Amino acid sequence: MKDKNTPITPRAEDYSQWYLDVIREADLCDYSPVKGCMILKPRGYALWEQAVSFLDAEIKKSGVQNAYFPLFIPQRLLTKEKEHVEGFAPELAIVTHGGGEALDEPLVVRPTSETIMYETFKDWVQSYRDLPLLINQWANVVRWEKKTKPFLRTTEFLWQEGHTVHATYEEAEQRTLDMLDMYRRYSEKMLALPVIVGQKTEQEKFAGALKTYTCEAMMQDGKALQFATSHNLGQNFAKAFEINFLTEKNEYEFGWQTSWGVTTRSIGGMIMAHSDDKGLVIPPNMAATKVVIIPFLKGGEDDAKVLAYAEQLASELKNNSITATIDVTDKRPGEKHYQHERFGTPIRIEVGGRELENNSFVYIARDLSEKQTAESKNLVETIKNELTNMHGRLFDIVQNRLDTNIQDVSTYEEFKQAIEDGKFVRCFFDGTAKTEELIKEETGASTRCYPLSEVEQSGICIKTGVPVTSKKVIFARAY
Amino acid sequence: MKDKNTPITPRAEDYSQWYLDVIREADLCDYSPVKGCMILKPRGYALWEQAVSFLDAEIKKSGVQNAYFPLFIPQRLLTKEKEHVEGFAPELAIVTHGGGEALDEPLVVRPTSETIMYETFKDWVQSYRDLPLLINQWANVVRWEKKTKPFLRTTEFLWQEGHTVHATYEEAEQRTLDMLDMYRRYSEKMLALPVIVGQKTEQEKFAGALKTYTCEAMMQDGKALQFATSHNLGQNFAKAFEINFLTEKNEYEFGWQTSWGVTTRSIGGMIMAHSDDKGLVIPPNMAATKVVIIPFLKGGEDDAKVLAYAEQLASELKNNSITATIDVTDKRPGEKHYQHERFGTPIRIEVGGRELENNSFVYIARDLSEKQTAESKNLVETIKNELTNMHGRLFDIVQNRLDTNIQDVSTYEEFKQAIEDGKFVRCFFDGTAKTEELIKEETGASTRCYPLSEVEQSGICIKTGVPVTSKKVIFARAY
Repeated sequence: MKDKNTPITPRAEDYSQWYLDVIREADLCDYSPVKGCMILKPRGYALWEQAVSFLDAEIKKSGVQNAYFPLFIPQRLLTKEKEHVEGFAPELAIVTHGGGEALDEPLVVRPTSETIMYETFKDWVQSYRDLPLLINQWANVVRWEKKTKPFLRTTEFLWQEGHTVHATYEEAEQRTLDMLDMYRRYSEKMLALPVIVGQKTEQEKFAGALKTYTCEAMMQDGKALQFATSHNLGQNFAKAFEINFLTEKNEYEFGWQTSWGVTTRSIGGMIMAHSDDKGLVIPPNMAATKVVIIPFLKGGEDDAKVLAYAEQLASELKNNSITATIDVTDKRPGEKHYQHERFGTPIRIEVGGRELENNSFVYIARDLSEKQTAESKNLVETIKNELTNMHGRLFDIVQNRLDTNIQDVSTYEEFKQAIEDGKFVRCFFDGTAKTEELIKEETGASTRCYPLSEVEQSGICIKTGVPVTSKKVIFARAY
Repeated sequence: MKDKNTPITPRAEDYSQWYLDVIREADLCDYSPVKGCMILKPRGYALWEQAVSFLDAEIKKSGVQNAYFPLFIPQRLLTKEKEHVEGFAPELAIVTHGGGEALDEPLVVRPTSETIMYETFKDWVQSYRDLPLLINQWANVVRWEKKTKPFLRTTEFLWQEGHTVHATYEEAEQRTLDMLDMYRRYSEKMLALPVIVGQKTEQEKFAGALKTYTCEAMMQDGKALQFATSHNLGQNFAKAFEINFLTEKNEYEFGWQTSWGVTTRSIGGMIMAHSDDKGLVIPPNMAATKVVIIPFLKGGEDDAKVLAYAEQLASELKNNSITATIDVTDKRPGEKHYQHERFGTPIRIEVGGRELENNSFVYIARDLSEKQTAESKNLVETIKNELTNMHGRLFDIVQNRLDTNIQDVSTYEEFKQAIEDGKFVRCFFDGTAKTEELIKEETGASTRCYPLSEVEQSGICIKTGVPVTSKKVIFARAY
């Protein structure tokens, strides 16, 4: 039976329902009248704003400039890069009428912007002096989905997409890896989520790319979540869109390109990795409001003093760049307590007559259950430390989960058992689409990546027994 | 003949071409492969980012929270409010296919989000305790346009749209006026653009609104530009979407709603109001980069010292929150000078051997032609003052233009002459659609607004001679 104070299905009972319950109780989003599209409610959108704020600063710091390209892509452009259109064709939304008339050429609602951007990049890039061209866009994109889940998979979603053109392969590869590293930092610093970074297999790479790198996180059920990818596009799109430039030696060469993106999906990963049976847990750096102060009011003459004390604490926190609110709703303190537990507010502070008298306050970090007491003169230091510690605790739990749930296997029997046990499995495989599909059919596990931390060595394919020389790959069931 | 250094058509020769030339030379946007949609290049998008940064803070300060609703609107929703759908029907882009299949119900790409939001608001609003509901969204919208112009009129554009629900008419009206005032502040403080704020006529109001308020600016050719509107929606949409709530007296009442928005069009207004025959002029508060430092390098051994001096000045400015860049491209100083003139950088600083020796610097504000010299120890103060003064100068020019180009008229002959002379005309009219249309046909002028500053009085309609008791209205030709 569900706890009255936490109307959330326990993880052990139904992980998938738990995720939906956590989101509902934290008031993050709502279903919309459009199939597959969600509404980001203020509490949900605020999480994305925190992500944008971190990423936008990092992207600019790396020399990339923001721009904005049209939502619509003429169909003929999308078909220019053969693998690209094949990858996206089944997911497209098509505009056929505009201004009351049938269009001569249908317009695709962008599923990603390579084609619409590169058609213009070919005019922007003429000489080596125009390189590198470093562009980013914050935008909504649409990919038609049959089965959707809030944050994790929706027909429309929000993201940033970076697109660069370089003079050499090496420079493009470096940019691809640099942005992968930015996503790792975003994940670690903001989401408190250590990830495995690595390269996708040929079959799992982005449609049209030379190489795709990915951040893969492990959820509490052992399933993988990919939430950011960085692609070295080689010269594939440059050839299709005729992006060429005059080199210093006065010769024409095709540009070397990259694209990279992270989406609202990363918020889903954060929710799924940290939350508990009591509700949402927000890592402190992702919380727009770090602290809620709950005043204990008894209806007596002390109430005004307690409120004034709460305001004093709140304004001291705000003066030190720690966003804090006071919950002055007419709910009982207990209700407020549970409410903010479900909202995932990182720290709750309680103050009443006793705290006022002792110049103290009681506080509870969202991820711990015991209350602690501190003197008000140490307010800022105490809260700052607790926020830092909470980030560290959340990070360590996930790191530990990752460390203890990656299993090296050498037989297919072991492989199947480990996947069944909800592990990430590390092994050799022959790198073919056929083997990958076969394993997926038989076990539900797909390749996640060749981790960057692995080294090439000789081994035997876990499925076919064929000898290979490669890095080990990670297999897992995935969202 | 065009000046070689300013390849821009003079305003006096062709105002419309001048506008396009200014935008091209400032590298703000590019045409796209999609008819009617523009590409915001980094310099153009940076202007919008400055606007967003100001407005987003103001919106949040006013208690409104950001959220995000779907791009697509099921057609049946759009038709719920009769006047609304009639107003927007000719401008819609329609998605008929998704995921490779024809859709059962076509989806409209949002031209504005009243209908998709209010279909959900009806569930969010149950009791007076849920009010006011204060939501804002930053989004792209699509309105099919036959004739487009960068920033001013494009099929897709960027905007914010605020949507609120209140318990009373009075509260909704206050919110409508408060947000109108926020737009006035945005215009004055950021765009350096004094505006006339007022109420639209019945014919010119938003499709579905009770009242529409507007900000109207005067361009250099005397034409009006409307760029922000705030609507008191009354209960029109609430009735259509069944947004009702239980009052404190336990009775059901329909909500009172507002919506308000400002778009990338306001950037077009800024460009058109301030720029000159030399190129773009950016009011200082809208400039992401306030200062460019141009070092005079002679190829000698002093060059390193001059560069170091430039860097010292740049970092002192940055430490005082004044963004500054050093132009180290290999262009000649003269070319750099003209380049940044066309880019509209508010202040150019020049430093060479002499300035290094004298511990001084030469500076030129974008809107003035004479160079000034100051001592480097006064750098921050000098530049801060010059930025403030430049804002004031730009503002005053537009205010003066507005003051001297609004003409009160009492005969239709005077009216026609004043419109022909490029004036805003202030007069009485009978308030009917018929008269408004007739005047527009005969003179090209449309009503802009009943200014808030006007008082009701008795008068005679400029066209029909009918006696009326109303505020005077402003007529003008408009973008």
